[in-house]
Amino acid sequence: MTVMETQGLAAKHAARRLAAASMEEKNRALAAVADALLRRQDEWLAANAADLEAARAAGMRPALLDRLALDEGRVAGIAEGVRQVAALPDPIGQVVKTIRRPNGLKIEQRRVPLGVAGIIYEARPNVTVDAAVLCLKAGNAVLLRGGKEAFRSNKAVVAILRDALEASGLPRDCVALVEDTSRQSAQEMMDLTGYLDVLIPRGGPGLIRSVAANAHVPVIRTGEGVCHVYVHQDADLDMAARILYNAKCSRPSVCNAAECVLIDRAVAEDFLPMAWEYLKNKNVVLHGGPEARDILGDFVVPATEEDWDTEYGDYQLAVKVVSGFDEAVDFIAAHSTGHSEAIVTKNYTVAQRFLDAVDAAAVYVNASTRFTDGFEFGLGAEIGISTQKMHARGPMGLEELTSTKYVIYGSGQVRE
Amino acid sequence: MTVMETQGLAAKHAARRLAAASMEEKNRALAAVADALLRRQDEWLAANAADLEAARAAGMRPALLDRLALDEGRVAGIAEGVRQVAALPDPIGQVVKTIRRPNGLKIEQRRVPLGVAGIIYEARPNVTVDAAVLCLKAGNAVLLRGGKEAFRSNKAVVAILRDALEASGLPRDCVALVEDTSRQSAQEMMDLTGYLDVLIPRGGPGLIRSVAANAHVPVIRTGEGVCHVYVHQDADLDMAARILYNAKCSRPSVCNAAECVLIDRAVAEDFLPMAWEYLKNKNVVLHGGPEARDILGDFVVPATEEDWDTEYGDYQLAVKVVSGFDEAVDFIAAHSTGHSEAIVTKNYTVAQRFLDAVDAAAVYVNASTRFTDGFEFGLGAEIGISTQKMHARGPMGLEELTSTKYVIYGSGQVRE
Repeated sequence: MTVMETQGLAAKHAARRLAAASMEEKNRALAAVADALLRRQDEWLAANAADLEAARAAGMRPALLDRLALDEGRVAGIAEGVRQVAALPDPIGQVVKTIRRPNGLKIEQRRVPLGVAGIIYEARPNVTVDAAVLCLKAGNAVLLRGGKEAFRSNKAVVAILRDALEASGLPRDCVALVEDTSRQSAQEMMDLTGYLDVLIPRGGPGLIRSVAANAHVPVIRTGEGVCHVYVHQDADLDMAARILYNAKCSRPSVCNAAECVLIDRAVAEDFLPMAWEYLKNKNVVLHGGPEARDILGDFVVPATEEDWDTEYGDYQLAVKVVSGFDEAVDFIAAHSTGHSEAIVTKNYTVAQRFLDAVDAAAVYVNASTRFTDGFEFGLGAEIGISTQKMHARGPMGLEELTSTKYVIYGSGQVRE
Repeated sequence: MTVMETQGLAAKHAARRLAAASMEEKNRALAAVADALLRRQDEWLAANAADLEAARAAGMRPALLDRLALDEGRVAGIAEGVRQVAALPDPIGQVVKTIRRPNGLKIEQRRVPLGVAGIIYEARPNVTVDAAVLCLKAGNAVLLRGGKEAFRSNKAVVAILRDALEASGLPRDCVALVEDTSRQSAQEMMDLTGYLDVLIPRGGPGLIRSVAANAHVPVIRTGEGVCHVYVHQDADLDMAARILYNAKCSRPSVCNAAECVLIDRAVAEDFLPMAWEYLKNKNVVLHGGPEARDILGDFVVPATEEDWDTEYGDYQLAVKVVSGFDEAVDFIAAHSTGHSEAIVTKNYTVAQRFLDAVDAAAVYVNASTRFTDGFEFGLGAEIGISTQKMHARGPMGLEELTSTKYVIYGSGQVRE
């Protein structure tokens, strides 16, 4: 048995115990986790300082260093997040459906944990706690494999989590860290059939595509966001410019940010200068074809075919002038990652057709794509935004981290 | 582009059209399919006769020949099944959840089709129609790869289906048959990422395990059934014997049939002879350990470790004497495929503990495992019994062949 199989088996055993834990037991454990994160933050911060020093020495970019860095304020925020998850309703045991059959069988469809979740992610130590805590609340054991740049931080915090679980009466092995951060260990995790019930990659598009392409355990793809804002010819153009600016610039690094604007030819000449009035505040680099360049001149660099499929993740935007609704919808079907898509229009019929025709986790009329988020939808904390159609689509909260089972109460029934 | 990629792309296009089809359009198409199956049954039966002749010449076993064979009565039953699916409520467009946000956003979670489903199955021509029709009703295009022994039958009936779809105004490519029945074509289908939204293997455990182990597209595992009946020491022993007999013998070839009985040591000596009074009617071969052999003598052949994980699919049954509840539940956790598990007991607390502790798609108290079935649960036609935890668990009907999307009605909202 490999080290990871041994961890997987331990997680399976822990998951059986956790599946039987009461809501009170789980909430007590989460409160203990939040307390321990604060009480033992010096351990976590010291480990994080060592990670940061090594990362700086290795020349890590400032934006990535910032994601890696912890301080007292961030730890307090993470601990507060744990308490918020503890306060969420427990999905486990909820009765989804009840059926009574003519032969007297009483059938109940109940919500149960998935079992053991695997998370593969990059160098963000907050993900370690956020992901573990959501999995625990939904009754799942979790096997975590974070990026090697955050290894010391993750090792420190997972020890704190495991101690807190044990002290509150749940198995330590409800949470485990994969200590080998090589590429091989990622592949080993993707092949951990029989131990992992689900594998969720969290990180950049490269990581997610690679896991989806190579995994043999069930995967949930999250957070791939080539999102479009389509400015229809009947749009309120000022509203469209404000929505586009928000969708692109309010936080360009996240998956629900827009990467491409589609504009009906009939309004392109009016709209593009209006949009630029907003976008120029962030020096957004526009990638467009000849039509966009005719209108905005040198503010637009020539787009290549690649631009239409690129998740820039920063202040860059692809610009495409289209002949109308059908071309826009076909373009979205060809280039969207199925995350969030928006139309701006005053036309009722066109709005309804867009909602029907566009195949994505979230489809908007007259609002920014940036709202695709568990909290913004009123659903609470999430482990990611699923862009696939199986199991869960859109913000993946506690309920999406569960399965169901049928329980059947009989009195001797046999089938004819 | 390979032949299969070309089919996949055509199916994707057809799926977009089908997703926009109204309930009336889909039902009209299904009615046309049912009519065409009857009107053109001679074509189907002639192709089936050729398949049967070739299979007989190749020495196919009688049980398999029977599964392959069609006649007028079977065709009439299949056509009637199509009409029943047409009569089911349309899941597409159902609103699963509605949320109103303080900022005025109105969010709706709607049921939508999965897209393109792939089905890999063996030489049962009725599956071709049953699977296609369920997929169509749920708005999905379908790519079918049946066993080579049924190829002529499948080719004939898929032509009938495609003609009927086209005549009723839907794209022919909503249904397509993979004409290459080699092993490579199965692997090609498992790798058809970007075209297939889900792949469902239907057939024996070997086929299902192979698809689950080798596929890179999302898979739903169905129909693997190593199911147990656990006779607790507080059972009504006559009820237990009748339930066991029904679970094993009413149709041993299906996935919800029992393969193993667990018996508390305290009642083994009383129970086994009572059970044998029933089981001997079908000459059931018992595979058991020394304790079972001490009680029933030569009716029990020595069990090997393999027996505990075998889906016999016929009149054979593994027999295991256990020390009590904990051993029974641990044994089930170790050997069950997570399909259907039953306890027979008069003890209220033990019954509840079993329902909580056993992790399977269906968990029974005092009833036969044979009820795990869409119709028996009152849920209608199904494409299989899912034994996995992701996406769907238990009978997979129309609803389980769908996904959801969020649609958001705004009036200019941007995120702060």
